Amino acid sequence: MTTRTLVRGGLVVTAADETRADVLIEDGRIAALAAHDTDTARGWSAGTVIDATGRYVLPGGVDAHTHMEMPFGGTYASDTFETGTRAAAWGGTTTIVDFAIQSRGQTLRQGLDAWFAKADGRCAVDYGFHMILSDVNEHSLAEMDLLVQEGVTSFKLFMAYPGVFYSDDGRILRAMQRAAGNGGLVMTHAENGIAIDVLVQQALAEGRTDPRAHGEVRRALLEAEATHRAIQLARVAGAPLYVVHVSAQEALAEIAAARDLGLPVHAETCPQYLFLSTDNLAEPDFEGAKYVCSTPLRPREHQEALWRGLRTDDLQVVSTDHCPFCFAGQKDLGRGDFSKIPNGMPGVENRMDLLHQGVVEGRITRRRWIDLACAAPARMFGLYPKKGTLAPGSDADLVVYDPHAEQVISAATHHMNVDYSAYEGRRVTGRVETVLSRGVPVIENGAYVGRAGHGGYLPRGTGQYAH
Amino acid sequence: MTTRTLVRGGLVVTAADETRADVLIEDGRIAALAAHDTDTARGWSAGTVIDATGRYVLPGGVDAHTHMEMPFGGTYASDTFETGTRAAAWGGTTTIVDFAIQSRGQTLRQGLDAWFAKADGRCAVDYGFHMILSDVNEHSLAEMDLLVQEGVTSFKLFMAYPGVFYSDDGRILRAMQRAAGNGGLVMTHAENGIAIDVLVQQALAEGRTDPRAHGEVRRALLEAEATHRAIQLARVAGAPLYVVHVSAQEALAEIAAARDLGLPVHAETCPQYLFLSTDNLAEPDFEGAKYVCSTPLRPREHQEALWRGLRTDDLQVVSTDHCPFCFAGQKDLGRGDFSKIPNGMPGVENRMDLLHQGVVEGRITRRRWIDLACAAPARMFGLYPKKGTLAPGSDADLVVYDPHAEQVISAATHHMNVDYSAYEGRRVTGRVETVLSRGVPVIENGAYVGRAGHGGYLPRGTGQYAH
Amino acid sequence: MTTRTLVRGGLVVTAADETRADVLIEDGRIAALAAHDTDTARGWSAGTVIDATGRYVLPGGVDAHTHMEMPFGGTYASDTFETGTRAAAWGGTTTIVDFAIQSRGQTLRQGLDAWFAKADGRCAVDYGFHMILSDVNEHSLAEMDLLVQEGVTSFKLFMAYPGVFYSDDGRILRAMQRAAGNGGLVMTHAENGIAIDVLVQQALAEGRTDPRAHGEVRRALLEAEATHRAIQLARVAGAPLYVVHVSAQEALAEIAAARDLGLPVHAETCPQYLFLSTDNLAEPDFEGAKYVCSTPLRPREHQEALWRGLRTDDLQVVSTDHCPFCFAGQKDLGRGDFSKIPNGMPGVENRMDLLHQGVVEGRITRRRWIDLACAAPARMFGLYPKKGTLAPGSDADLVVYDPHAEQVISAATHHMNVDYSAYEGRRVTGRVETVLSRGVPVIENGAYVGRAGHGGYLPRGTGQYAH
Amino acid sequence: MTTRTLVRGGLVVTAADETRADVLIEDGRIAALAAHDTDTARGWSAGTVIDATGRYVLPGGVDAHTHMEMPFGGTYASDTFETGTRAAAWGGTTTIVDFAIQSRGQTLRQGLDAWFAKADGRCAVDYGFHMILSDVNEHSLAEMDLLVQEGVTSFKLFMAYPGVFYSDDGRILRAMQRAAGNGGLVMTHAENGIAIDVLVQQALAEGRTDPRAHGEVRRALLEAEATHRAIQLARVAGAPLYVVHVSAQEALAEIAAARDLGLPVHAETCPQYLFLSTDNLAEPDFEGAKYVCSTPLRPREHQEALWRGLRTDDLQVVSTDHCPFCFAGQKDLGRGDFSKIPNGMPGVENRMDLLHQGVVEGRITRRRWIDLACAAPARMFGLYPKKGTLAPGSDADLVVYDPHAEQVISAATHHMNVDYSAYEGRRVTGRVETVLSRGVPVIENGAYVGRAGHGGYLPRGTGQYAH
Repeated sequence: MTTRTLVRGGLVVTAADETRADVLIEDGRIAALAAHDTDTARGWSAGTVIDATGRYVLPGGVDAHTHMEMPFGGTYASDTFETGTRAAAWGGTTTIVDFAIQSRGQTLRQGLDAWFAKADGRCAVDYGFHMILSDVNEHSLAEMDLLVQEGVTSFKLFMAYPGVFYSDDGRILRAMQRAAGNGGLVMTHAENGIAIDVLVQQALAEGRTDPRAHGEVRRALLEAEATHRAIQLARVAGAPLYVVHVSAQEALAEIAAARDLGLPVHAETCPQYLFLSTDNLAEPDFEGAKYVCSTPLRPREHQEALWRGLRTDDLQVVSTDHCPFCFAGQKDLGRGDFSKIPNGMPGVENRMDLLHQGVVEGRITRRRWIDLACAAPARMFGLYPKKGTLAPGSDADLVVYDPHAEQVISAATHHMNVDYSAYEGRRVTGRVETVLSRGVPVIENGAYVGRAGHGGYLPRGTGQYAH
Repeated sequence: MTTRTLVRGGLVVTAADETRADVLIEDGRIAALAAHDTDTARGWSAGTVIDATGRYVLPGGVDAHTHMEMPFGGTYASDTFETGTRAAAWGGTTTIVDFAIQSRGQTLRQGLDAWFAKADGRCAVDYGFHMILSDVNEHSLAEMDLLVQEGVTSFKLFMAYPGVFYSDDGRILRAMQRAAGNGGLVMTHAENGIAIDVLVQQALAEGRTDPRAHGEVRRALLEAEATHRAIQLARVAGAPLYVVHVSAQEALAEIAAARDLGLPVHAETCPQYLFLSTDNLAEPDFEGAKYVCSTPLRPREHQEALWRGLRTDDLQVVSTDHCPFCFAGQKDLGRGDFSKIPNGMPGVENRMDLLHQGVVEGRITRRRWIDLACAAPARMFGLYPKKGTLAPGSDADLVVYDPHAEQVISAATHHMNVDYSAYEGRRVTGRVETVLSRGVPVIENGAYVGRAGHGGYLPRGTGQYAH
Repeated sequence: MTTRTLVRGGLVVTAADETRADVLIEDGRIAALAAHDTDTARGWSAGTVIDATGRYVLPGGVDAHTHMEMPFGGTYASDTFETGTRAAAWGGTTTIVDFAIQSRGQTLRQGLDAWFAKADGRCAVDYGFHMILSDVNEHSLAEMDLLVQEGVTSFKLFMAYPGVFYSDDGRILRAMQRAAGNGGLVMTHAENGIAIDVLVQQALAEGRTDPRAHGEVRRALLEAEATHRAIQLARVAGAPLYVVHVSAQEALAEIAAARDLGLPVHAETCPQYLFLSTDNLAEPDFEGAKYVCSTPLRPREHQEALWRGLRTDDLQVVSTDHCPFCFAGQKDLGRGDFSKIPNGMPGVENRMDLLHQGVVEGRITRRRWIDLACAAPARMFGLYPKKGTLAPGSDADLVVYDPHAEQVISAATHHMNVDYSAYEGRRVTGRVETVLSRGVPVIENGAYVGRAGHGGYLPRGTGQYAH
Repeated sequence: MTTRTLVRGGLVVTAADETRADVLIEDGRIAALAAHDTDTARGWSAGTVIDATGRYVLPGGVDAHTHMEMPFGGTYASDTFETGTRAAAWGGTTTIVDFAIQSRGQTLRQGLDAWFAKADGRCAVDYGFHMILSDVNEHSLAEMDLLVQEGVTSFKLFMAYPGVFYSDDGRILRAMQRAAGNGGLVMTHAENGIAIDVLVQQALAEGRTDPRAHGEVRRALLEAEATHRAIQLARVAGAPLYVVHVSAQEALAEIAAARDLGLPVHAETCPQYLFLSTDNLAEPDFEGAKYVCSTPLRPREHQEALWRGLRTDDLQVVSTDHCPFCFAGQKDLGRGDFSKIPNGMPGVENRMDLLHQGVVEGRITRRRWIDLACAAPARMFGLYPKKGTLAPGSDADLVVYDPHAEQVISAATHHMNVDYSAYEGRRVTGRVETVLSRGVPVIENGAYVGRAGHGGYLPRGTGQYAH
């Protein structure tokens, strides 16, 4: 028997349209949308009716960059797939794409299976995987084809972190060539890690050991350099490219130049780069460590450039790079040596709300908000139109959003498993009210009503990013 | 009593989504869309059911640049609002935005009323008006505010045609300033007409009198120059800008540079610039005159740049600049003096099909096709979401399109009131099958079933182009 | 009998070399240079021996942009050819190129003859003429050829000052075409005067009447726009271009872009743009009027860009645009209406010293100083190697310069016929000690020893600016 | 007793001036120049008088990039310092700067001393050394300071040739930082060797083994990439940069962009890139191997861009990268495997003549010729004004050049120790007639009259490249 849910009276906002429409859900999928004032809409009934009057009805958010339980510098990101996806749901995100890791000496298979195991049966919402390649060789290149076939269609290569995740340009080129052949998408962490490591050692030798130095040594020019290099390698390979966590305006300029040439170069930024800055890294009493992530936070003036990039579509996606480490016990591994601070910040719960501030402040339109947070990441990573929109046939991942509610972000109230918030005390307008994942309530009336294991693995497709 | 039409089984393509959905129309508006395989869809019935199996279901095209019955060089464009909008419908275009003209010494009111009179009761599909300002002065500036209020929200200024439509930079600046205040959008024909006129006189003096000279004197650099100038004037005024009929890659580069800066600069190109070239202007026996329009056709290599601009969104709209003059009796006014050839080409009927060739040839995606031809022009000119999409609540301007049908473009079969086709003999894949305008059939089973006067005037809104 | 002068023991600085050399002058020309420590040098004797030990020996300055006795806004620039060239000599400048003016309705001949008459028998140093075209027509175009033949090889066209000097783009294009044929060089005052006049009227209407408004209405973007336009027109004409008095970094960027393309586009800036800013225009009690010139002074941050342009050779020349109007009785014509303030500033006496500050502060090298102030303007305007260098065969226009002397610039001590200094109170290092014009002393031991009429007319050549 | 030579009646051409001047040489230095028609000139006498009537009198050429006896791929460049400098003299080049090599595991001292030994007592003309760093470490970094003090002031780092000369970005950064402190200049061979090696292996695996593949795998984009990277690393280090042997227009564009920003980025190209192309690499019967060098020859269209770069001063120097390997016995090491072809071409004898063709064909002026070939390299590498100009006090390295003589370049007549000419059969206008090195004849009346050991080591200064 068909289960029906009806979301009535809201303003349906997608990347393309804003419509006063009622949304009818059947068995976890969007069955139909009808103009609110029509006979058709009035004729609809359902077992569950949600009144969305005065609310936005949004596609569930797609966070294409999370690191649950990620091992880094001898510790692990503090959110498990269970706590992390639950927090995501609280924040209106109903899909995450996390990163499985191939360690040096391992096969991709081994890495991927390990991550399947971590996530299986634990997630509150649906999830997919990118694959991190740390060891590009004949065997792992061949495995890429297999992974694409089972829905792991994007591969991250690091130009940073020599000795850990780092791949040299030859390995990156080969991975790109392979992706050009199998439809995969190469993602790069674009920082010149080899040069940065020299500056790190020099800073430490000079006694510049606190978190501020993290921002100083990871020079914007070295992000721009690596971005340019990744683009040229992708051109040589004839492959598309996706640059993760762009934070420097100089790097953005390289991406814009590539896109002006019509190259299939894509990029994301993250809320931390839009709202935080090197001022935070300079917070006293080692508090700056809370904001240590790579690429690093930049001086304030970069924020304006990034917002502009979001408007001009030089940046297509906003992800979180959610990778939380507790201040106590984790971040303080780096007291006295900033290079030992685990790199990463929490954020999976805050993304939709923070971007909505961009709407409130007139920086982006409502539709652009949904494009950046839902539709574009879904399309970029082969999940569209299953995820990322509210169209007939799409999964009923749906958020009822109160655009006028006020809230204050705080570790005291957030649901991520981490002892601080990067946005502590920030007052925002707008709040998630109800969240459905494939038609099933996850958040309702300010309560988590989901369950670990509801979320399922999402095999992903290829090649949807083109115009 | 509610009139219902049901379009069943097609692939609904909008600028954002591709969905196997049934479309339910009530009283001329899209009431609802339902996934084709759902109980909901199966439950729908209607007085009229259109089987769209194997077809695309598209929003009706929006052609934002036509000149029906336009006076030019002592003659008139050969399509009336009656013949022109009928031809538009044949080509799947259900909305035109034509240009009312203020002549020198006239008020805007006088010009607009004249065009209202021409169109009233004659059109097969809906229409709106831009206003051409030929006489910027205190009075006409004040009138701009009034026009915005009655839905004429865009104003075209000519940097070409000295002595006719031309406005100097001061007048353009003042119009832009006014538009910045009242929400209007200034459109520019960006060619340095003052310099071009020097080159025209020199060409004629040298005996270069045939149509080829038209392309030679209207230098690409002088289009680029004027485009740059219009952009700078708009920056000074703090106003958005829309550049019409971009044909030179150098002009496109100026627009791309402006957009990289985040400026609200927008632009269109036209099918003739994507498919034709100076080779056509060089056709013997004065046949080149068929292709005389301004901005002129460019050498072939510009086509690639324009297609790229369509993909990168540096060009957002494809319009026709439909302004037909018969070869016999009109174009030949310029035998022996290319400067006397009436400027303009037919095309309103061919736009949707020609752009679909871009899809067939892999230059643009289906969604981008609909964006360029329907959604973006509707949004740009304040008609969205009434026009340009198929969303609950939108006007039921809907095209059933057979993507596999083959046809040959020819004056022998087209419906425009002009004795030649600029695309004579060109074989294209895809053909309009059925066209509804506000739910009412206009084209059906290969026959025109509409009527003059069905089409109504569309007052337009402002400011929808932002991201 | 040969008259010989020997300048012994100095550091000879030219645009290319720095040499410890003795300079032997015979009959007004440089006969020879010899390394100071050689037998040859030791063997030289002369009727006059100047000891330059510890001094620089420089080519006399070439100021390629002066306006002596220029009529403007109902008054005249306060320096005559007599007072102005005397002041030039005091400042180490031994050649000026002034602007003869064709008024509307006049022939070039009439204008040029008027300026010949003004200068004849009055000048302390040599002089040439550019020709300002205010009335481009068949006759004046034909006259351009004749002027080139008699050594007036450069022609200034105004994109500013509608109704006075302004030429429209067609006239500018025609003048450029003519210059492309006869070897002449078109100079442009690149500001969009038509648009600026709109802003002027608006400012006055809003009560913004003081000198500060002069800087506000003459927008940097409108200088950049006109610069871009002049470049494109020159490309269409196939002509070289020289842009006078560049003050906006945006305009400089247009020039740099043109030069990257290898186009023969050249430009100058002036000391006022390197040392003064809109801060000066904002000086109280109408003192800002002292700094009213066009292009206007810009905000301070432009200075850095201009210095960089001097280093990168995007700017090749530093001229003064010397055009002094007394504060009392002339500048105050514009009290209560900034648009009536005569446009222009004094500076012919200060150029060499001010640029030397760039050397002292490490902004440019000594050789670059001489290139910008002597060699490049001489080459640009067809006076090389007669002027602008110290090479065997060159005119013995020679300056002995004390690089360590300190002086304070002041109207109390300067020799220009104007009641204020734009650099009042500025302390500078370096001072002209001795000046020879064709071997004849003009300044000696802190005294003017020249005479009106010593300076002669310089017919100029063409086409020396190419690499 | 003073030895005097007088060069009479020629046109003295330097980077700055063209003068009809007699040149008086005393004891190996330029003592004086006098205008030819003066009493002073007429009064001169000398033991040796050279009649230069109808000839150019030029500063001796400075070739800043040669590799005499360089070990490469198991063989040695076929010119010794003796044969190579003799050939240089035949071609009008009187100074070379060769590259001493630090091998892996060696100190700089060891490498430099080895090259001192190779050159000592063998050279026909003067020589200096750059130092190639193959092993950047604490010790070699410290040695850089010592080398600067003894006149080896430039250091070449390779981004190509992994496993041989290659340094990673960290090592390059550290060398640049050291140079920023000691006044040294880092030179980079800018190609992404890591990526290229992947393409090399792929080409060989595909059976693309002939010389043409050399040009294909060393992609222009990978030269541009490395050029961009070197520039960014230099910015991070705060160091100047000199990019050797630029061959790709895309790389040139990176340099031009850097120079527009005012960065101290410098570059050379070589005659082979101006006159040869991938067409040569495609010559049949393995003849393409004659043209194998890195960076590789590019398609013809790059030549135009490089000439433009020479005019715009984005390229400041033309060197040869002279590194000859005989076709028989050396180049054929790579038959069947292009990657084993020794990289390098002969050219030290042809540079001045080939560049003069640029003058003859109107691509550059005479002065620019001398700037590129003599003055700029001397200045760039701290030899000015001792070398590179003809000024009082300069070394009397002087060439009498017949601008009208015709010659045909051929291995049959050249003096380089290599069995082929890259320009075989090319007819050129202009020929070296007489060459003096420090006043001593080396080439005279078409005969070599110099001697091995005349040429001495040239310690070099720092920091002369600035404007």
